Amino acid sequence: MKKIGIGIIGTGFMGLSHALAYRAAAGIFPTDGVPELIAVADVDGAAAERAAKRFGFRRHTDDWQSLINDPDIDVVSITTPNRFHLEQALAAIKAGKHVHCEKPIAPTSEEARIMTDAAEAQGVITQVGFNYLKNPLIKLAREMIDNGDLGDIVSFRGIHAEDFMSSPLTPWSWRLDPAGGAGAVADLGSHIVAMARFLLGPVVAVQADLETVIKQRPVAAGAHELRAVEVDDIARLTVEFARGCKGSIEASWVAMGRNMQLGFEVYGTRGALHFTQERFNELHYYRHDAAGGVRGFQKIEAGPQQQPYGAFCPALGHQLGFNDLKTIEIAEFLRAVSGGEFSGPGFRDAMEIQQVIDAAIRSSREQRWVAV
Amino acid sequence: MKKIGIGIIGTGFMGLSHALAYRAAAGIFPTDGVPELIAVADVDGAAAERAAKRFGFRRHTDDWQSLINDPDIDVVSITTPNRFHLEQALAAIKAGKHVHCEKPIAPTSEEARIMTDAAEAQGVITQVGFNYLKNPLIKLAREMIDNGDLGDIVSFRGIHAEDFMSSPLTPWSWRLDPAGGAGAVADLGSHIVAMARFLLGPVVAVQADLETVIKQRPVAAGAHELRAVEVDDIARLTVEFARGCKGSIEASWVAMGRNMQLGFEVYGTRGALHFTQERFNELHYYRHDAAGGVRGFQKIEAGPQQQPYGAFCPALGHQLGFNDLKTIEIAEFLRAVSGGEFSGPGFRDAMEIQQVIDAAIRSSREQRWVAV
Amino acid sequence: MKKIGIGIIGTGFMGLSHALAYRAAAGIFPTDGVPELIAVADVDGAAAERAAKRFGFRRHTDDWQSLINDPDIDVVSITTPNRFHLEQALAAIKAGKHVHCEKPIAPTSEEARIMTDAAEAQGVITQVGFNYLKNPLIKLAREMIDNGDLGDIVSFRGIHAEDFMSSPLTPWSWRLDPAGGAGAVADLGSHIVAMARFLLGPVVAVQADLETVIKQRPVAAGAHELRAVEVDDIARLTVEFARGCKGSIEASWVAMGRNMQLGFEVYGTRGALHFTQERFNELHYYRHDAAGGVRGFQKIEAGPQQQPYGAFCPALGHQLGFNDLKTIEIAEFLRAVSGGEFSGPGFRDAMEIQQVIDAAIRSSREQRWVAV
Amino acid sequence: MKKIGIGIIGTGFMGLSHALAYRAAAGIFPTDGVPELIAVADVDGAAAERAAKRFGFRRHTDDWQSLINDPDIDVVSITTPNRFHLEQALAAIKAGKHVHCEKPIAPTSEEARIMTDAAEAQGVITQVGFNYLKNPLIKLAREMIDNGDLGDIVSFRGIHAEDFMSSPLTPWSWRLDPAGGAGAVADLGSHIVAMARFLLGPVVAVQADLETVIKQRPVAAGAHELRAVEVDDIARLTVEFARGCKGSIEASWVAMGRNMQLGFEVYGTRGALHFTQERFNELHYYRHDAAGGVRGFQKIEAGPQQQPYGAFCPALGHQLGFNDLKTIEIAEFLRAVSGGEFSGPGFRDAMEIQQVIDAAIRSSREQRWVAV
Repeated sequence: MKKIGIGIIGTGFMGLSHALAYRAAAGIFPTDGVPELIAVADVDGAAAERAAKRFGFRRHTDDWQSLINDPDIDVVSITTPNRFHLEQALAAIKAGKHVHCEKPIAPTSEEARIMTDAAEAQGVITQVGFNYLKNPLIKLAREMIDNGDLGDIVSFRGIHAEDFMSSPLTPWSWRLDPAGGAGAVADLGSHIVAMARFLLGPVVAVQADLETVIKQRPVAAGAHELRAVEVDDIARLTVEFARGCKGSIEASWVAMGRNMQLGFEVYGTRGALHFTQERFNELHYYRHDAAGGVRGFQKIEAGPQQQPYGAFCPALGHQLGFNDLKTIEIAEFLRAVSGGEFSGPGFRDAMEIQQVIDAAIRSSREQRWVAV
Repeated sequence: MKKIGIGIIGTGFMGLSHALAYRAAAGIFPTDGVPELIAVADVDGAAAERAAKRFGFRRHTDDWQSLINDPDIDVVSITTPNRFHLEQALAAIKAGKHVHCEKPIAPTSEEARIMTDAAEAQGVITQVGFNYLKNPLIKLAREMIDNGDLGDIVSFRGIHAEDFMSSPLTPWSWRLDPAGGAGAVADLGSHIVAMARFLLGPVVAVQADLETVIKQRPVAAGAHELRAVEVDDIARLTVEFARGCKGSIEASWVAMGRNMQLGFEVYGTRGALHFTQERFNELHYYRHDAAGGVRGFQKIEAGPQQQPYGAFCPALGHQLGFNDLKTIEIAEFLRAVSGGEFSGPGFRDAMEIQQVIDAAIRSSREQRWVAV
Repeated sequence: MKKIGIGIIGTGFMGLSHALAYRAAAGIFPTDGVPELIAVADVDGAAAERAAKRFGFRRHTDDWQSLINDPDIDVVSITTPNRFHLEQALAAIKAGKHVHCEKPIAPTSEEARIMTDAAEAQGVITQVGFNYLKNPLIKLAREMIDNGDLGDIVSFRGIHAEDFMSSPLTPWSWRLDPAGGAGAVADLGSHIVAMARFLLGPVVAVQADLETVIKQRPVAAGAHELRAVEVDDIARLTVEFARGCKGSIEASWVAMGRNMQLGFEVYGTRGALHFTQERFNELHYYRHDAAGGVRGFQKIEAGPQQQPYGAFCPALGHQLGFNDLKTIEIAEFLRAVSGGEFSGPGFRDAMEIQQVIDAAIRSSREQRWVAV
Repeated sequence: MKKIGIGIIGTGFMGLSHALAYRAAAGIFPTDGVPELIAVADVDGAAAERAAKRFGFRRHTDDWQSLINDPDIDVVSITTPNRFHLEQALAAIKAGKHVHCEKPIAPTSEEARIMTDAAEAQGVITQVGFNYLKNPLIKLAREMIDNGDLGDIVSFRGIHAEDFMSSPLTPWSWRLDPAGGAGAVADLGSHIVAMARFLLGPVVAVQADLETVIKQRPVAAGAHELRAVEVDDIARLTVEFARGCKGSIEASWVAMGRNMQLGFEVYGTRGALHFTQERFNELHYYRHDAAGGVRGFQKIEAGPQQQPYGAFCPALGHQLGFNDLKTIEIAEFLRAVSGGEFSGPGFRDAMEIQQVIDAAIRSSREQRWVAV
């Protein structure tokens, strides 16, 4: 059985999530290649050591370059802040590694293009962590749309709102660094743009308004010194899809009380869907019945009829968790690395998502519709 | 006891709703003035006769002018299509009647201004049928916002979506007549703009996109001949409030499966609210607790602690219906006519709401932010 | 046009609710007979006077006997505490009046039988205030069950829980008077038994446990003196229906936080329904699809396709309120009094419901199944 | 680092679930002991081989005895049908293994007692798979009850309903074998009894009604020959807790449309909770506020403040899945096996749960309250 050597750069929320997912993927989705946790890197060497011990990596380092050059490693997961992605991804690609990179892959679509071109030139497989797309019910939603169950699509309404930046006392951090790109529109907006695109196809034009609600934040937790915030807290977009319909998209990280309001409504001439990640084992479906029978939105509960739910559990109603979505994502990546089907999203998709974000930033600045 | 003579023009959905509400108001909200149903007018004289018989009007007519000139009538309710409002309202005002007019009061804010000026010059009381504002839970929401329970408001997200125009077979009708103003943005959008304004105060700028989804419709039910549709089916607005925050507002009458999705979310620095007319006896409230105790949105159920619920029912949880909201609206109007407190919204409010709609239309056409 | 003279005994919650409903019924459900509010009686003469003034009764009295003997009165509504129902109803029947009596009609089924026999011997029409049955969606539920949409019914699970007696400081009152019958099982349990019986037909056997949770209460608000409570706070029943299936039924007035949890689930071999009065404009329906298509409970929203919703409002999604249910109930009663179809429930139904309550009391005492 | 050798008997739903959980536990909850998958047994040797390959067991066998005698194995998971539990557990205990056994541990409480006594005599650690108790929000619910947040508890209402046996065409299977114990009351009822007991402590008396709805089933899928069903499809219990309050409990595997309706409501003198496994990342809490402020059930969303959620994900709102509950369960077992704190439930708990089931069966047969 072939081994696939894994290296992870970064040990924050996503670094640990990747480590768990690589471990879980092998049991839940056996492939020809078996992942082996080779090395973990973090600028904080002690954090790297703790992660290595916890998850069973063979080695740890505070030097990501050495990880990338490790000949035992076939696949590199990049989970560092956005502004490091370009350098690290290019190095990994150059070293011939397959690359999984957290979203957004780059501060700008220009950098995303450089990464995409490099990966395609080198022929390595790439994946980007838009984990919410991996929900079996989201795949069902797309199938229903593609099958015409909703008729012609006439409208989309999407949002990704959380509240983790809602306190003015929450200090300045790498998420607010303009060198890393935009604010909520990139951090959360990219998720809902990815969702819209997954369901309905490419976005071709954007009209947007980006707003910084909390204009200054402490330079560090508890500090009196304040630092100006240059990125957006809330973004409101109107988008036009290549297929012809339009939609509205909102991103906010100052939506008090919301922990995971990643939701959408899709309306068509023969039906509709609505969904929220707050209850992500449910998809609500309305089927228009011209004959006028009993009507109303149906609550579809996740089950093994929507694959790959069944790989986790053979019985309806037991529900997947967030880590299971990450496991599906990683498993699909490993399958592609092992020579199987590639399901994406890869760097090219992420670049196109980033182009929508870039267009939103430009539209807000120039106060006009901008083509993507 | 003083009598208040009532005349109603129009016998459609809203005409009948007004008749019911005048009847109900007297029992539920006794005032010094007791409403008496004097006359009902409809261009379809037979419809006027049926309504008179059903609700106990003393007389009926197919000539609204004669109704307005009836000396027994103190109050005129105008429930005809939008394009008739100006002429009828001006005539009623000139005759010294108090006027209740259905929304939107006019196709344009210019006409609304003429009506407002006339009413104010004449000194008559006016009210406009934004009935959803009369929900006791909506009054609670406003009080909570005004009291600072939510802290500083940072964002609004509102929608009014229904599906009554979603079938391409639904024929052309007065709602689509450009002489009556805009489409969904006026018909439904005015409700959610009124709600936003009631909760957060005036809107000062708008960026909008108006879209006609179904470009042609049968000239009549079952007809093969098609007529071009010139008004919008979906409107997507970004708005700026005078108080400083921004919001998004959407209106659609092609949202398949939605019967009454009039909803909003309001986010502040210390709390949040969300609400939908689909479950309008519930208001969801999140209170940020800096101490980190048990948190989550609370489902507040309507009850007598939110007046005037108690006038309908002394016990919690029994719930108001749509007609009860209309009864509150009419009762508040009658109270003002009887010399009591005026709670609005009157013609001036409706004019200001219409100015937002007008700004949205202009913004969509010119693809830029427009000041209200 | 024929007049129907109305007299109401009692001016509490239900007395006022009846007055409103008689007023509303005439406008919403015109019949050959037009109700006229003749007189209202209350032992507290001042309360009777206030009610007369508020609702427009011609006269008021502190002597219910004189109301019953009033020749202008055709119909008597009895809304006094349970223990007065027998005497008042018999007097009204003897005087040849049609009688609407609030539920439960009597402390015991023996008294209910006396009332039923008297009414049937006299040939007057009777109705009992199980108002929740008048919800158009409940009628739809029954039709679906009768049509076989759910297949063979295999199980029922019902509850009526509120919290108005949950504080030990809530004082002793007529609801706790054993002379008035039982406690929660009669006050709330009768509603859910009525619902079960309306949907699934007669109950033939009961196994029950009745429990007094708060064993003593202040004799009056704020009093130090306590009085023993002899009636139940919570009742738990297992019932057997004549049609063969069984069900569970619960009643509680000490269910903290619940204002109107009158709910049920019905399961059959081909489908299921669930409902709660907490959201009574929604009915949830599951249709088993042997072919294995997309499945899940559908949220059916109330609308004009479920009559008589349309008499209130021609548009879907606007929703009925509690008072509208009472209006339907009264309108159906007036229709029967006017010679139209009788829809019940009348005294005989109420007697049969009371027999289930009596059987529950006996079952709890004797700790065994009891036939109804 | 110490190794803990794992053997699993059975490769059905729960066998695979255990294998996944042992694998996941090590990464998510590192302990002194690291689990190693040594062997898997199944009477169907090919299934054992497949499982071994999928999850990385070193060996596989069709002979569970050899697994139990394997000196590399420290811990045995028993996931076979109920009627095999006694023999396999006793053998494992005798071999000095720690034992995790799926629920219900035995067809009768007498057998459960033999297993419990043997384990306690041998000094091995035992755990039983009541996985739903491992939800961090359920632990929060218990803490709130223990802390007095709800005041004195006055009532419990619980259910576990699914529909996997609702079709009369679903054939006879080991779940229906009376040698394996009872039907729905044991299979699903044991979960909700375990929940009730976890939250409120021991049950001391039961009144029950057990019902077989589908009296015959095909002997095998598609077979014409029918076999009588001797176990219950629906069980309805009234229970009395040692702490003094009572409750109702229902179990059904013929509740059409329900995939995982494991739910409860707990009412106290100062608050209430309600929960359903259908949305198991939410707990609804009502706090009675004597001062009469804004009230209503709060939707508490799962997050790292309820441990061990944080071991899976550091951010609120991401949600756990079913397999995560199983992972917590297995991790807690491994922690106890490694010398850490024991959190249960063990064989003694399972025996006491089974005693409630036995009492329910006896109560239903004898139609009377039965002491546990």
